[in-house]
Order: sequence, then C-alpha cells, then structure tokens
Amino acid sequence: MKALVFHGPGQTSWQDVPDPGIKDAADAVIRVEAVTICGTDLHIVKGDVPEVTPGTVLGHEAVGEVVEVGGDVRTVRPGDRVLISCIAACGRCGFCRENRYGQCRGGGGWVLGHLIDGTQAEYVRVPFADLSVHPLPSAVTSEDAVLLADIFPTGYEVGVLNGRVRPGDTLVVVGAGPIGLATIATARLHTPGRIIAVDLAESRLEAARSMGADATVSATEDPEQLVRDLTDGLGADVVVEAVGVPEAFEQCTRMVRPGGHVANVGVHGKPAALHLEDLWIKDVTITTGLVDTHSTPLLLRMMAAGRLPAASAMVTHRFELAQMEEAYEVFSGAAHTGALKVVLGGPKHDEISVAA
Amino acid sequence: MKALVFHGPGQTSWQDVPDPGIKDAADAVIRVEAVTICGTDLHIVKGDVPEVTPGTVLGHEAVGEVVEVGGDVRTVRPGDRVLISCIAACGRCGFCRENRYGQCRGGGGWVLGHLIDGTQAEYVRVPFADLSVHPLPSAVTSEDAVLLADIFPTGYEVGVLNGRVRPGDTLVVVGAGPIGLATIATARLHTPGRIIAVDLAESRLEAARSMGADATVSATEDPEQLVRDLTDGLGADVVVEAVGVPEAFEQCTRMVRPGGHVANVGVHGKPAALHLEDLWIKDVTITTGLVDTHSTPLLLRMMAAGRLPAASAMVTHRFELAQMEEAYEVFSGAAHTGALKVVLGGPKHDEISVAA
Amino acid sequence: MKALVFHGPGQTSWQDVPDPGIKDAADAVIRVEAVTICGTDLHIVKGDVPEVTPGTVLGHEAVGEVVEVGGDVRTVRPGDRVLISCIAACGRCGFCRENRYGQCRGGGGWVLGHLIDGTQAEYVRVPFADLSVHPLPSAVTSEDAVLLADIFPTGYEVGVLNGRVRPGDTLVVVGAGPIGLATIATARLHTPGRIIAVDLAESRLEAARSMGADATVSATEDPEQLVRDLTDGLGADVVVEAVGVPEAFEQCTRMVRPGGHVANVGVHGKPAALHLEDLWIKDVTITTGLVDTHSTPLLLRMMAAGRLPAASAMVTHRFELAQMEEAYEVFSGAAHTGALKVVLGGPKHDEISVAA
Amino acid sequence: MKALVFHGPGQTSWQDVPDPGIKDAADAVIRVEAVTICGTDLHIVKGDVPEVTPGTVLGHEAVGEVVEVGGDVRTVRPGDRVLISCIAACGRCGFCRENRYGQCRGGGGWVLGHLIDGTQAEYVRVPFADLSVHPLPSAVTSEDAVLLADIFPTGYEVGVLNGRVRPGDTLVVVGAGPIGLATIATARLHTPGRIIAVDLAESRLEAARSMGADATVSATEDPEQLVRDLTDGLGADVVVEAVGVPEAFEQCTRMVRPGGHVANVGVHGKPAALHLEDLWIKDVTITTGLVDTHSTPLLLRMMAAGRLPAASAMVTHRFELAQMEEAYEVFSGAAHTGALKVVLGGPKHDEISVAA
Repeated sequence: MKALVFHGPGQTSWQDVPDPGIKDAADAVIRVEAVTICGTDLHIVKGDVPEVTPGTVLGHEAVGEVVEVGGDVRTVRPGDRVLISCIAACGRCGFCRENRYGQCRGGGGWVLGHLIDGTQAEYVRVPFADLSVHPLPSAVTSEDAVLLADIFPTGYEVGVLNGRVRPGDTLVVVGAGPIGLATIATARLHTPGRIIAVDLAESRLEAARSMGADATVSATEDPEQLVRDLTDGLGADVVVEAVGVPEAFEQCTRMVRPGGHVANVGVHGKPAALHLEDLWIKDVTITTGLVDTHSTPLLLRMMAAGRLPAASAMVTHRFELAQMEEAYEVFSGAAHTGALKVVLGGPKHDEISVAA
Repeated sequence: MKALVFHGPGQTSWQDVPDPGIKDAADAVIRVEAVTICGTDLHIVKGDVPEVTPGTVLGHEAVGEVVEVGGDVRTVRPGDRVLISCIAACGRCGFCRENRYGQCRGGGGWVLGHLIDGTQAEYVRVPFADLSVHPLPSAVTSEDAVLLADIFPTGYEVGVLNGRVRPGDTLVVVGAGPIGLATIATARLHTPGRIIAVDLAESRLEAARSMGADATVSATEDPEQLVRDLTDGLGADVVVEAVGVPEAFEQCTRMVRPGGHVANVGVHGKPAALHLEDLWIKDVTITTGLVDTHSTPLLLRMMAAGRLPAASAMVTHRFELAQMEEAYEVFSGAAHTGALKVVLGGPKHDEISVAA
Repeated sequence: MKALVFHGPGQTSWQDVPDPGIKDAADAVIRVEAVTICGTDLHIVKGDVPEVTPGTVLGHEAVGEVVEVGGDVRTVRPGDRVLISCIAACGRCGFCRENRYGQCRGGGGWVLGHLIDGTQAEYVRVPFADLSVHPLPSAVTSEDAVLLADIFPTGYEVGVLNGRVRPGDTLVVVGAGPIGLATIATARLHTPGRIIAVDLAESRLEAARSMGADATVSATEDPEQLVRDLTDGLGADVVVEAVGVPEAFEQCTRMVRPGGHVANVGVHGKPAALHLEDLWIKDVTITTGLVDTHSTPLLLRMMAAGRLPAASAMVTHRFELAQMEEAYEVFSGAAHTGALKVVLGGPKHDEISVAA
Repeated sequence: MKALVFHGPGQTSWQDVPDPGIKDAADAVIRVEAVTICGTDLHIVKGDVPEVTPGTVLGHEAVGEVVEVGGDVRTVRPGDRVLISCIAACGRCGFCRENRYGQCRGGGGWVLGHLIDGTQAEYVRVPFADLSVHPLPSAVTSEDAVLLADIFPTGYEVGVLNGRVRPGDTLVVVGAGPIGLATIATARLHTPGRIIAVDLAESRLEAARSMGADATVSATEDPEQLVRDLTDGLGADVVVEAVGVPEAFEQCTRMVRPGGHVANVGVHGKPAALHLEDLWIKDVTITTGLVDTHSTPLLLRMMAAGRLPAASAMVTHRFELAQMEEAYEVFSGAAHTGALKVVLGGPKHDEISVAA
C-alpha cells in the first residue's frame, strides 16, 4: 500500500510500504477513507519529537472501514465504518480505569503515527480496537467525523471540561486555529454567557464567529483591556490557551478573574513565567492535559443530532489521499494558504452538500 | 489601650492608642485574649505590603471576648468567647455568595491588620461580625483556637481541599513551617495513604512527624528521587507548596504524577518558571488561593471532637500580651530560635495541661 | 393600600389593609409592579397549608420598585427596579452559608405570603433585602422577570441541577405545567440530547414544544414505552417529576435508566410507593427540594442575554392588579381556561411587543 | 473437583463436578483458597433469585491462586495470588467506561454464582480476568482479603461514597450486619464527626463499636430521638440503610436532615413508602446501587497499609472448604449462632495471629 513515511527531520515520502496485518488479538485493520494532518505532524517532521523513529508512518486521525479484526475484538467487525481515535486505550491500567486513556500505561495512549505506524496511509492497524475506534452513525459525514478523531475531543476535554465552563460564564479562547475553534464549538454545549476569541489572523477570527464566538479581538488590539471592560474589571471566568507560546499563556493568566480557570490546550516547547507574586492570592486554577477521547461517543452523538456546528466548516482544503505531500505543503504554509484543516480522501462533494 | 502600631518599614511600637468602638451596625468590639504573629506580619513590617499605611494596628488572628456589638449583629453578643477569623465577609457580594470570602468585594476579605486596625491589641473592632467571628466551644482552648484563625483553614482549604486529597493518595508537603504543618494535620481528615514532608530544618521535620507525616526528607537529600521510589516512578497524587519561593514551586511541579494536583499555599514575591514543555501533556492541575475560612466551623468542631492534633503542639513560645515586641523578635528570628508559632495572652498553663 | 387577604379556607378578599413599613434594618418596602399567582397559593386558599394564618396577605413572586430601605441595606436603594425572590435569606445560618436559602434557619426561607404578608398587594415589605431582591437589568421586562421569582429557579435548581442534566442526556419531564415548562426552558443551558415532555393536555404539550421539548407524548399513550424505544430499552438519563401525585412519581422511577437521576419538583400531599425491590440494584439517585433561588442572578443574566426563551411565552392571561380576584378564578380554573401563568400589573402591551 | 451445587429451592449439595477450564481468551481459572457465604446466597437457596438455574455452582467471593489464563489476559498469570471480585467487567460497554461495572452490558456484572458457576468450589473460572481479579499484596491475609470481594466495596461505594460522607458529618448506619459493619469501617476514611449504629442485636452493636462506631443504639430504643438529640433536632447528614426491609428504609428517611443523603445498601424484596408529603420540601438525596468494585484496588492498598480495621474482626466462624454444608447451616442460623461472616479455607491460624 501507499503511506506517508517519516525518514528523519525534514524528510517524508508518500511511498510503498507493506500492508499492515493483525499482530495482536485486540487489533483491527482499517482501510482509510478520510484522514487529516495535525499541527503535531509538522512538529514531527521538523524533528521536534525524537520518539518518532525513521520509517514510521505518520498520522493519528482518520475515518475508515474495518477490514479485519483480531480474535478478541467484540464491538466492531469487518464492514463497519468507524472513527479512529487519536488515543488508544488498553482498558486495564490504572489510568484507563479512570478514563485517562491519554496517560495509558498498558500500550495505549498516543501511539498512532508516533510509536507505531499511523493513519496517513491506505490501511492502518489500530491496537485495542474495542476502546480505540468508534462505529459511526450514518448521519455523520466522514469529513465531520475525522475532526472528531482529535481536535474536537481535545477542545472539549482539555479546554471546556478542564476549564469547567458553566452556563453564563465569560469564556476567552486565545488562539483561533483548529483547536481553538473546536473549543469554541464545543463550549456552547455548556452555554457560556459570552465567548471571546483572540487571534492575529482576521480569517481565523471570522471562523471563530462562524463557530459561535460572540466577540473577537485581534491579539494586537489589547484583548486584556477588552476583557476587563466586559467584566467590570474582574476578568474572565475561563480562559483557554490554544496557541502554545509562553506569551499567550502568560496573557491568559492576566485575563482570568479571581476564582477562575486557565485551561492550557496549546503544545508548548519552552517554559512560561508563572507570576505567582500576583497569582498566589487569586484563587486561580490552571490545568494542562493531553486528550483522553473519553468524550468522543458523546461528541459523535451531538454531531449526529445537529447540536454541534458542522466540523467541516473549518475544512479549508480537500485532497485525494495520493496528494498527501501537496496537502502537507498547503497545511504547513497556513500563514500564506489560510489553511485551517485539510482533509484527504473524505466524502464526495455531493455528500458534503447533503450534510450542509 | 495598648496596641502594636506600624509606623513604616522597620518601625513598630507597642503603644497607647484610642480604644476602638462600634462604627457600623454590623461591627463587634472584642477584648483580645490570645493572639499570634503571622509570617505575613513580618512582610508588612519589612515594607513588602504597601497597602498597609503607617498608623495601622497589625494582626489578623485572635481569640477574645465580645464586649459590644452593633445593632445588626444577630449571632454573637457581649460575653461570648469567640474566634476572630483572619477573613471578614460582607455576605452580599458575588464572591461571598460562593463562599469565596477571601475575595469579598463588599468591604471584607483580609482587612484586619491590613486595611483596618488589627488584633495585636487589647481590643479590636471586627466588621461584619456575624460572618467573621465564631463562638468557641468550651472544649477548645484559646491556644488551639487561635491557630484556627488563619493557619489551619489555610492549610485545609488552600492545601488539602484545593489539592483534592483523597483516601489513599500520596501527599507531599514541601515546607514544614506552620502552614505546612497545618496542611499535614488537616490532610488526615481525608486519610491519604502516605504523607511525605520536605524541609531543610530537622526540627520542623520532627514537628511534621508529630502532626502526622509518615515520612520526612531533608530538602537537601533529593526528595524527588524519594517520591519516585515510593510511587513506582509515577510521582505524588498531590503536592502542596508551603514555602513561597520559585525553586520550591518548580520542584512541586516535578514531583506530581500525571493527573495529579499541585496546590500552592506559599506567599510568593516573584515569578516561577512553569515548565509547560514538560507539563502540557501531563494532565496537571495547579491551584493558588487565599484562605476563605469557610471551613472554620468544621475545623472547630473537629478540634473539639479530638479529631485534629492539638494545634498547640506547634506553639514553641508563649508571652504576655505586653511582651509583643519581644515576641516579634523571637518569631522573626526563627532560624535561631526554632520558633514555629508564638502565642501572646492565651490560656494559663494549667488550662493547657487540662487540655492535653 | 389594597391587598389580597386570606381569611381562612375558601375565603380571600382584595381589600384595604395598612401600608407596610420598615420593621427591621435589613428590610425593604417595594411598590409592586407585576405579580403572579402560584399553584401553592391555591393550596393555601383551600386550607392545605395550615401555617398560613387568617389575615395574611398572599403571594411570593413579584417585580417592583424599591420605595424605602432599612439602615442595614447596602445593595439596593429607593428607585431601583427589582425582582422579589420567593425565598428570603438571613445569610448567616449554616444553611444560608451553603447557599441552601430555602432551608434558612434565621428567619428567611419561604416566608412571603406564608408566614408574613406577601406580594399580592400594592406594596410589600421584604426582609433581608440584600439577599432577597435582585436589581433588574433593563433588558428584562417585568413580565419575564416575574417568572424568575419562583418557577424558573425552581425548574432549574430542583429539576435541572438536582437532576444533573449533562450534554447529550435524554431528559424526560413529566408534567408540562409552569414548573415543567421552566424545567424544559432552563435544561437547554446544559444541552441535553433530547427533551421529552409528558402531559395530559395537548395545549401544555404544545407549550412544551415552544419551550424546547424535542418530543412530547400524552400521558395516556404509554410514555414509558416511548422512552424505552428511544433509549434502546435503557431508560432516560434524567427524569423530572413536575406534577405532584404518587402515580407520576412512580412512573418517573420506572422511566429512569440504571445510573440515572429522578428529580422531584412536584409538591406532594401523600406518600408514593418506592419500588425498592426493583430499584435497590439500579444505581438510581432520587432528589427532592425546595428552591433556594441561588441561581436567580445567573438566570437573570441569561434572560437578559437572550439565552433563555422569553418567560412571557407561558403567560396566557394578563390583568390589572385590581382584578386580583378575577385572576384567581381564571388561574384556578386552568382545566377550562387553559391558564398557564397569569400576570397582574406587568408591562404595557407595547413594552411586550418591544421585548418579543 | 468438589463444589456447592444449587439444585432448586432448598436443595444444594457439596458434590463432584467437572473441573472448569478456559472458555474464552479473557478467562482465568483459579484454585480457591478462601471463600465466604453471602446473604444473597441464602436468598438464592430459598428460591428468591429465579435467574439462578439448577446445576449452578454458588458463591461470588473468594481468594485464590491463578492456575491458568486465556491468551488475552495481560495483568495476572499462573501462580499469582488474587482476590476474585464479586463483579466482572467487560471493560468495553458504556457502563464499564463509566466505572459502573455492576451494570455491565457486555457479559460482566454480577455473574459468578448467579449466571455462571461461582466460587464455592475448589476451582473457578473467572471471565474478563484482567478487570475482575486483583493481585494481592502479601501484607493482606486471605481472610481479610476475602471480605474485600464484596462487602467492603459494597459498604464503601454504595454506602459511604453514594452517601457522600464528608469530614465532620453525623453518619447513621441502620443495620450492623456484615454490610453495615463494612460501611462503618470504610466511612472512617472520610472522618465523619460521629458514627451511630442501629441494630436489634447487642452482639452486632458491639461489633459496630469495634469497627469504629462512636455510639450505638438498639432499634427498639427510639434511635430517631437519639439522632434528633445529637443534632439539635436537625437530623443526620448521612443515613445508610443496611437492612433491606421497608420499615428500616422509612426510618432512614425520617432521620436525615434537610440537605442530607440516604444511601440504600440493603437488598429489598418489596416496596417502601416514600413520604413525599414530608420530603418534597426537604432537599433530600436518596441513592440505591449495586456495588461496582471500582474501589477494590484502593481498599486493598488501605488494608495493606493498616488504614482499615482488620476485616477478620467480623469473621465469627471458620471452616475447611469441605465443610461447606455445615458452614451454610451456621451462617443461615445467624440468629442463634451469632454468625457475622464465615470463612472456608483461608489462612492457617498462625497466619491470623501474625496479622492481628
């Protein structure tokens, strides 16, 4: 089959590799129908994630059809259309028993396209299939579903749930890239009073409004002052960091009210300053986290019921699977291309119009 | 009356001042029976807390007898023996309605010995008396009670409750001064599996063991390795920072397990580095906070019922009220004097032996 | 002034009574602008609530203008337009400190039109005004606001919050009278996946759909089977009893899934059978409760922000204040008149059309 | 091998049956070392549990040594000494993913000695071994451990956790049989202020005191009045029903304070009256439940650490495995024999004295 193989920093190719097969009784092999590229994939390609060894097939998000299952798989079977979660779960370790699948100590967690071959391929082997893939309701298109493999549960669990968004809250989302947009879309399940999105790019702020932001503000136009003005000087109830740079994180801690929550979702490469000289007295809660995807079944149901904005609204570019290298170029050049999410494979265009 | 008056950085005196009286219908005037000195008082004296203006009487912890109440006070009356909480509460603002009295926007919060005259005096006026003083059960000695004015609810609310200590948890308390000791003592209400105390001073580690620590380790002897060894390399469920310096806080974030909690209790004067490059993926919750003293009635009941270690176990020095300046010297020289808590006034010694 | 006075079972009159005045420093006197009648008032008139003594002015819901305040009132002043909550709160007792104002032991709780003169009058004295009245945002009409005095917080706190409605849940509301409708309207703040309303009257089921019910079913058409069909036989996540008869309660316990919640909101006059022989093994949580109105500020904000359906959608009849006796007749004859809520006084009709 | 076989109401025999073997890749076969008899077993023998078909081996609690595992078992292997939980868990269904193993829809839940052959035998096949057996720390004796197969997690999860026992609470446990005693023992992990045990038998009240009850009262001596006297007339914070008869349940609902919790643990055979005419206004939470055994790893750690009373304190009779029929006679005649728990097999007596 064809797959995108990592050959070391800066080197990838869409090439022939052997077809995957069942290695363990809990495995499933899935034919990939739709797949996307994550910001993390770009970090891997740059060489920032040294655990990824040359020869690994990248990708951890996909929708596909089950073609083969191991003897221990009970919940899906060949022919089923499924969502492949970015997180696998052994279901047996202490972390899995507390639904912290992202921290799995039994061979799961984030392994696809990281420690084992991933989803940017024609076929993929998924370990622990019973807890790691989700049968898809027919009402959910592949393109909507593929965004539920990672970014929607990430925005919901690590942003909205960790931030404990409640009805009436003022929520600020710093960073309106795909994860920030997913945070905005899923926050509405808890009916905040007001969602304020902050970003540098007007196109992203526009996407934020379409996902449900009530107000948007350029990062260059003093969002801190805006938040103060809108909250009688108190600050926001919940601030979500969805950028991944120290300055953004530090700004979040200045925008939160006493008693409020800062939920970090961004992937960081260096330390931030934590201004404890101001914060020690302020009753602030700061959370970090990797997604567990425990919320994926809920999000699938809500998507199917029309209670979430169509994920496809943030798909800016579509490709055939064989255009993988071109898709990487477009996605990595987001500053020029305006790419939010790119989807490869996925639905025919008439399917999309039916869903819209 | 006599009181300890702040006259600017480095300058205080035990001197005559006018007796306080009722200014507002919600006030009570209380004759001080026992009072203590807090680390924060030392910061004020040094000039680190600029809101404290010269002429202010210091002190925010005391036990005493009510001598006069305003017309709106309904829950205490002259003659009642009461604990004066370090936090006053208007009871009307949004923060008070959520029991966040420490953040009160209606004239309460930490005001005693800070924005208004405090408790290091023969008499003190307490605003919002109904929500700010607590009638004392006769089974609780003044010396035990005075430590419930601040440090016990601080350790319990900001350390134990914010840290969400649960049965079976491994709890690390970094810093075994009065607040750290109060954290250890109150953590036992939630039956952690193991409490590990870290400090530089052997005398404090000994006090930690007497308060209920299961293991103690010198800060110089690699506590991080000890925690790893005791937790299969995972880290502690809950780590409480009770020092107030960046190095201690940063160490706490290295000792916590994925999914665990770091509760900051220490008062900090400068920023710490938050190593988001390690922590972003680790599901960590970090909390800060000022005490609200909402737990004071519970702690008083538990103290009366013998379910907390005698607070007086951490009283190292006792003085008459008139020895206020000497008491400050002993307390501020803790490195030499070994002082943990000093109590002025307080019970006669035979009362103490009855309580023991 | 004029007021509706209870003279014993079956006897009330709209008559002259002395104007109320300030009795306690925490009181406010309020000129009534809009007032409604509650099902509980009908019970009182029938003689079912013996604590109500002859001579009492009835009514516990109103909107009005503050005309006088006692010396201890800090948060409102003459001229303010306010919502009068059905629950008063002393703010000092153990229950008030836990926000259980409905259980207040210090002179609050449900007192208006019950233990003291109420709101069905031209003027009313409200005790503990700081915690018992709420300044009204100008965006909220008197008619919307008056429904937030009791039924909206009751539906939200006792139905939705006690029932712990979560995103995606299947929620069944048994009884689509005013309280059931308020439950449906406020449940949407938590985005249940599906709201099913059950009632006998088609007009009420229609109102339920307008408030946000996704499905409705006549109580005569086997709602239990419908719930089973919609939930793969499991039952509903949350079932709210909003009727107040044993049969309805018992049906609720048959419709809930294992691990689900039954929230009783109905006012009951006799025991129900609790089928522990079926339920002991089923992980069911059953809650009861009187409203605390701690959620009123939130609901006011959400109403002002347009995130709740207009309460006035359930106002079926409008009267002048002086038509009080006629309004009682219409409301008590709901089976014939189709009355849901009746409002006396309230906005001019052009105000209503502005709000709509 | 030998096993206790149910042959229909009133008929059981200790007889030869075929040895069990691995049927599914997730199974383990375990040689039984210690086993006990549960009140539920007596119900089965009486014919009250019609799902149990003649020919079934009874028993759902045991400690033993793994002798064989299926190909999919990853966490235990032959030679391991393990606790067999009364609840098995598929780990894949919606209930298991929320840790509600007792409600498992995938073939787990309470199956041993109920729907498949159980533990009152020399060997037993356990399905879903990874989630259904627990390796035993060497510090825990078999006799202590066997009581953690059912009654300790039942008392803790269905009594203490469902009842939300908090530090300082007044807890009443109605019924001081094995489950009530386990509730008392595990409640102490949350440091209630006072535990009051109610029973008819003085011997059981004595056992309650040894397990940690602060006060005991005969069911014939007006426990409701005692609770009122001890709580200023308010009632208890938490009341646990551990009897299983309507009168006991109804008494629990009279003893709980406004805002309190009634946790039903008893197995009931008929309905109780729920006095909604009193309770509707009282903010009461009532819970029911089957144990999930999610707390078993915690309880094992706490037992090993000496933070729970030795379970063996409630073992009144000990037998060899072959004395199964005699043990049933003693246990079913508890009124005469005073039996609390009987253990068959189990430790040598010198092991017990070491543990004591």
